[in-house]
Amino acid sequence: MAFADTFKALSDPVRREILMMLRHGSLSAGEIAGQFDMTGATISYHLSILKKAELVRETKVKNYVYYGLNTSVVEEIMLWLSELKGGNEDDKEV
Amino acid sequence: MAFADTFKALSDPVRREILMMLRHGSLSAGEIAGQFDMTGATISYHLSILKKAELVRETKVKNYVYYGLNTSVVEEIMLWLSELKGGNEDDKEV
Repeated sequence: MAFADTFKALSDPVRREILMMLRHGSLSAGEIAGQFDMTGATISYHLSILKKAELVRETKVKNYVYYGLNTSVVEEIMLWLSELKGGNEDDKEV
Repeated sequence: MAFADTFKALSDPVRREILMMLRHGSLSAGEIAGQFDMTGATISYHLSILKKAELVRETKVKNYVYYGLNTSVVEEIMLWLSELKGGNEDDKEV
């Protein structure tokens, strides 16, 4: 995982919204697109960025493709941020 | 705070390294620049992006300017990431 790709992927509000939609479970591209006033091509583009950043994983079930949140990458970012914040010993337990 | 600016700021490895340098306390631009094989102008550019993203705060002491980590923005990102990860109840305590 490259942090550069991850943070770039997270910098877009549509992509952050897609990730939030996936937090309760995987969805198909159609189900995701249904929540946005955007073309399927635009949603596919955002999904490809999220996949490249490994924030989203693709699962194929028969003829359908589902997109799910990769929580381990989310955890890696959180770990890096805790390390950043951890410099102040008093804050460690917060 | 705009998440777009924050995540864009974090996407650069030099800027992430600057933030890590600041986790034990504030430093002057000169002290920061001393750790990199880069011009002062390049470091100033990165510091301006970090300031715009509110990840770094400027403090003036007499004729010196110090840069310090803004942990509250780091906490806001962590909060957003926990919300993202929080969808799966089983993961809540991890």
